[in-house]
Amino acid sequence: MFIRNAWYASAWGHELQADNMVSRKILGETLLFYRTSQGSVTVMRDRCSHRFAPLSIGRREGDCVRCMYHGLVFDAAGKCVEEPGRKGVSPNTDVRLYPSAERYKLVWVWMGDPALADPALIPDCHFQDDPAWACDPRYIYYEADYRLILDNLLDFSHLTFVHENTLGGSKKIAEIKPKVEQTEDGVKLTRWYLDEPGVAPYLDGFATFEGRVDRWHIYHLTTLGNVFVMDSGSAPVGTGAPEGIRVPEAMQFVATQIVTPEDEKHAHFFWSYAHNFRLEDSAFTRMLTDRIQEGFVEDKFFIEKQQAVIDEGGSEGMAFILADNGLALGRRLIEQKLAEEASA
Amino acid sequence: MFIRNAWYASAWGHELQADNMVSRKILGETLLFYRTSQGSVTVMRDRCSHRFAPLSIGRREGDCVRCMYHGLVFDAAGKCVEEPGRKGVSPNTDVRLYPSAERYKLVWVWMGDPALADPALIPDCHFQDDPAWACDPRYIYYEADYRLILDNLLDFSHLTFVHENTLGGSKKIAEIKPKVEQTEDGVKLTRWYLDEPGVAPYLDGFATFEGRVDRWHIYHLTTLGNVFVMDSGSAPVGTGAPEGIRVPEAMQFVATQIVTPEDEKHAHFFWSYAHNFRLEDSAFTRMLTDRIQEGFVEDKFFIEKQQAVIDEGGSEGMAFILADNGLALGRRLIEQKLAEEASA
Amino acid sequence: MFIRNAWYASAWGHELQADNMVSRKILGETLLFYRTSQGSVTVMRDRCSHRFAPLSIGRREGDCVRCMYHGLVFDAAGKCVEEPGRKGVSPNTDVRLYPSAERYKLVWVWMGDPALADPALIPDCHFQDDPAWACDPRYIYYEADYRLILDNLLDFSHLTFVHENTLGGSKKIAEIKPKVEQTEDGVKLTRWYLDEPGVAPYLDGFATFEGRVDRWHIYHLTTLGNVFVMDSGSAPVGTGAPEGIRVPEAMQFVATQIVTPEDEKHAHFFWSYAHNFRLEDSAFTRMLTDRIQEGFVEDKFFIEKQQAVIDEGGSEGMAFILADNGLALGRRLIEQKLAEEASA
Repeated sequence: MFIRNAWYASAWGHELQADNMVSRKILGETLLFYRTSQGSVTVMRDRCSHRFAPLSIGRREGDCVRCMYHGLVFDAAGKCVEEPGRKGVSPNTDVRLYPSAERYKLVWVWMGDPALADPALIPDCHFQDDPAWACDPRYIYYEADYRLILDNLLDFSHLTFVHENTLGGSKKIAEIKPKVEQTEDGVKLTRWYLDEPGVAPYLDGFATFEGRVDRWHIYHLTTLGNVFVMDSGSAPVGTGAPEGIRVPEAMQFVATQIVTPEDEKHAHFFWSYAHNFRLEDSAFTRMLTDRIQEGFVEDKFFIEKQQAVIDEGGSEGMAFILADNGLALGRRLIEQKLAEEASA
Repeated sequence: MFIRNAWYASAWGHELQADNMVSRKILGETLLFYRTSQGSVTVMRDRCSHRFAPLSIGRREGDCVRCMYHGLVFDAAGKCVEEPGRKGVSPNTDVRLYPSAERYKLVWVWMGDPALADPALIPDCHFQDDPAWACDPRYIYYEADYRLILDNLLDFSHLTFVHENTLGGSKKIAEIKPKVEQTEDGVKLTRWYLDEPGVAPYLDGFATFEGRVDRWHIYHLTTLGNVFVMDSGSAPVGTGAPEGIRVPEAMQFVATQIVTPEDEKHAHFFWSYAHNFRLEDSAFTRMLTDRIQEGFVEDKFFIEKQQAVIDEGGSEGMAFILADNGLALGRRLIEQKLAEEASA
Repeated sequence: MFIRNAWYASAWGHELQADNMVSRKILGETLLFYRTSQGSVTVMRDRCSHRFAPLSIGRREGDCVRCMYHGLVFDAAGKCVEEPGRKGVSPNTDVRLYPSAERYKLVWVWMGDPALADPALIPDCHFQDDPAWACDPRYIYYEADYRLILDNLLDFSHLTFVHENTLGGSKKIAEIKPKVEQTEDGVKLTRWYLDEPGVAPYLDGFATFEGRVDRWHIYHLTTLGNVFVMDSGSAPVGTGAPEGIRVPEAMQFVATQIVTPEDEKHAHFFWSYAHNFRLEDSAFTRMLTDRIQEGFVEDKFFIEKQQAVIDEGGSEGMAFILADNGLALGRRLIEQKLAEEASA
C-alpha cells in the first residue's frame, strides 16, 4: 500500500544535533537518523544486523554507531567495521543504508530501489528556506491511514465545517467548485472566493487591510512523497488578485504539508506556513503558525475518528459527491503508482 | 453469532434529551440515537455516507444532523437532504435508518430485515413503567460474550456462591432443582425455596415481616432480544405463596434484565428491579437497587474472568452438570435461531 | 514452540503459604498452585471443568478448592468431589492435574506426558539450598520470547557492552573465545579472563583481596527446562584458579538462572546468586543480589527492545558472528528436542 520509489520527508533537520540519534518508523521500517561530523545526515535501518537489537539504544562513537548488545560497530554507511573478538568482521553484517538528503530544512529518505534515488526528484519546498519567506516548522503525529489525510487536503470544502471558527469562516468555501487539474506529477486545485466579507478567523488581528476580500487557495499535490504546496492569501476586493496582481496589502502564504506514512494506520505530518511579510517578527511567525495548528488539530480529531469507523466496518461503500473530484483524482494517481511498482 | 431479527434494548429513554446525540455500538455496528422535536426517537448508522466520519461528532440542526466534515445534512429518516455546493444531493448518500421504538422506558432497535420489524414483537417489560410498581433503571457494561451473561442468568445455583453475602444467603438455592420449561419464545425457570430461616442479605433492614420465609424465583428468558423478566419475592412461611396467595406482608419484585451484545466480546446490560410496595419512597427504591447492583458487580467480576480464561484457551470441553439444564436449553434455542437466520 | 516433556521451574516454594493460592501461566496454560496441609504442593489447571471460571478466584476449603461460581469442589488431585444439588458428581468434571515437585526451593511442573514425569530428571540446582552456600531467590518477568533470553545467557560477550558498568567491566570478556562443549543434556561454556586489572564493578567494596585477578565463568545450560548453572569467581592472579586451586581469598559464586516460558512472547525468570563466604551475613547476600539484579535489568531492557524489533519485522536474516557458537548450539538443541516431540 506504499509507493516505495519516492523521497519521503522523515525528519526536520533541526532534530539531528551533533551527537544524538533519532529513531523513526517510515513505511513500516524503523530507521536510525544521525548527523556525522561533516554535517551530513545518514539513515540506516535501526536494527543491528546480528541479533536485531535497535542501534538507537547503542552508542555514537565518532561517525560510527556501536550496538551495545554485543559490540558490533557500524560506520555512517552502515558498514560493519568492528566485531569484538576477531580481526575483520563476519560476512553479511552490514546494516541497510537508505539514500538520504537534507533539503528545505527536511531530511528526505528514499525507501525504494537505491539505484533510482535521484535527489533531483525531491519535490520543491524551497519556501521553507527562502530568505524572502519566514516559517516555523512543525510536526503532528496521526493515528490514521495516510490516504485519509490526503483526502482531507484534496477537498477544502471541509474548511467550512471542520474549521468553521479557525481556518474557514466562510460558507462559500464549500459552495465553490474548484478547478481540478492533473499535472505531470500530481494534482493541482484552484479555488477563488471573491468578494468575501472578511479574512479567515485565523487572521483576526493580523489583517493588513480592512473591508471585503478576495481569497484564494491554489495548491498542488506531488503524488510521490505526498507533498502539498499551497499558495493562499487574501487581498482587498477587486485589486486584481485573480489576475495575478498582488497589491502591497495583500497577505500571501505558502503552506507546505507533507504526509509520510509510518505504517498502515499511522502517519507523520511535517508542515510549515510561510509568509512573505513581517519577516523579522518571529513572534508573529510563531503566533500565526499556532493558529494554523489549531485548525490542523481539528483535522486530526476528525480523521482519527474516521479511521476508527473504518477500523470497525471497513471502507467499502463510501458515497461519491460532487466535491470529490480532487480526492478521487489523488486516490487514482496513487493506485496507478502502486500498480506500476507492483508490476515492475 | 448474533440473531439479527430481534428488538434489542439499546438505550434508556432518559439518555436522549431534547438536543443531544448518543452513539452506541450494537451487534458490531455503531448507531446514532437522538430525539426529534416531536419527541420520537430516531436511530441511524453513526457514519456519514460520504467519507465515513461519525455523525455523532456532527451537529444537530433541528430534527436533522449535519456531518461536520464536509457538511452533508441528514434528516431523521437518514435521508441526505443537503450537499454543499450543489442543488439536490448525489445518489446513494442516505444513511441507513434502523427501525426503532420507545417502550417501557427503553429505546428498542431492530437490527435485521426492516420488513420484519413489528413493534408488537417487543417483549413485555411493562413493570418498568407500570404505576403499580417502582424501579430505578440502571446500566452495566460487560467485557464478555453476551452468552456468558445469559448462562449466568439461566443458572441461579450461582447465587449460593457468587452472591453468598448479597443476593443469595442460602445453600438451598444451589441444592434445589428448578423446574425448566421451554415456552413459545424462550425458557421459563421456577425455583421455590420453602421454609428458609430468613430473607436474602440484600433485604436486611427492609423486611416487612420476621421469621421463616418462603422464597421464589420465577423467571422467563425471551430468546429474541435476550430479555429476562423475573417474578421473585419472600413471604412469611406457610402463607400460601407457592399456591399463588400473596399476603400483604409478602415482598414482591419484578426484575427486568436485558443483555444486548455490543460485539463478540462486549455487552450492554440494561436492568431494573421493580417493587410493588413503598412506591412513593424513591430513596428506598434507590437503596434497594444499589444493593442488587452489588450482586450484579459480583457477576461481572466472575463473568469477565471466565471470558479471560476462554480467550486464552477457547471454550471447548466444558463439562455439563445437573444444574445446566436451563442454560443448555437457552444455548440451544439461540443456536436454533442463528441456524434459521443463516439458512434464510 | 515449547518442549513439553520437561520440568519447568514455576514458582518459588516460599510463594506458597499455608492457605493462599497462586495463579501463573506456564507454556500458555494458566495453572493453580497451592500447598496442602501435609506441606506438599499441588498444581492443577486454573480453570473449573464446568464453565471455565478460574479456580484462583475460588475458595480454599481444607486441601480442596471450591469454584465460587457454581460451587464445585476439587481435591488436591484435581478430582471433583462435590457438585451442589446432587449426590456424587457428573462425569468429566475433574480438573487436569500436573505432576509437580518441590526441590531446591522451587516448585517444578511437568508440562508434558505425565507418564514420563520422573523427578530424577529435575536439573541439579542444589546450590540454592546447600548449607555451604547462601543466596536470595529472585524473580523477573520478561516481555520476550524465552529463546532470546537463552541467547543472551549463551553469549557472555554482551557483558562488555550491556553490563559495562555492572557485571562486566572488562573488554576482555568480549575478546576471549570461550570453550563451547555439547554435553549429554545441553551446552557447557568455559571462559577464563586471566590477569585482569581488578574485579567486576558489582564486587566493588566486597573484594576479599586487592590487585590483579583471574576471573572465570563456567556455565552449563540444561536444555530441558532452560536451567543455567554457572560457576564463576575471581581469584588473586596466578594462584592456580584455572588449574582448580581456590585459595581462601578467592570469591566463588554459583548463579542459577531458569527461563520458563509464559507464552510465545513472555517468560518467567527465576534466579539466585549463591556465594560460599560470609554465609551468616544476610545483608551481604541481599546487597550482592541487588547488584546482580541491576545487571539483569539491563538485560531485560535490551532483550525486550530486541523483541519489539522482531515483532515489527520478524527474525529472518540475522547475521551470524564468531561469538555465536554457544547460542547457535543452544538453539540447535532446542530445535532437535522440538522436532523429536513433534514426531513422537
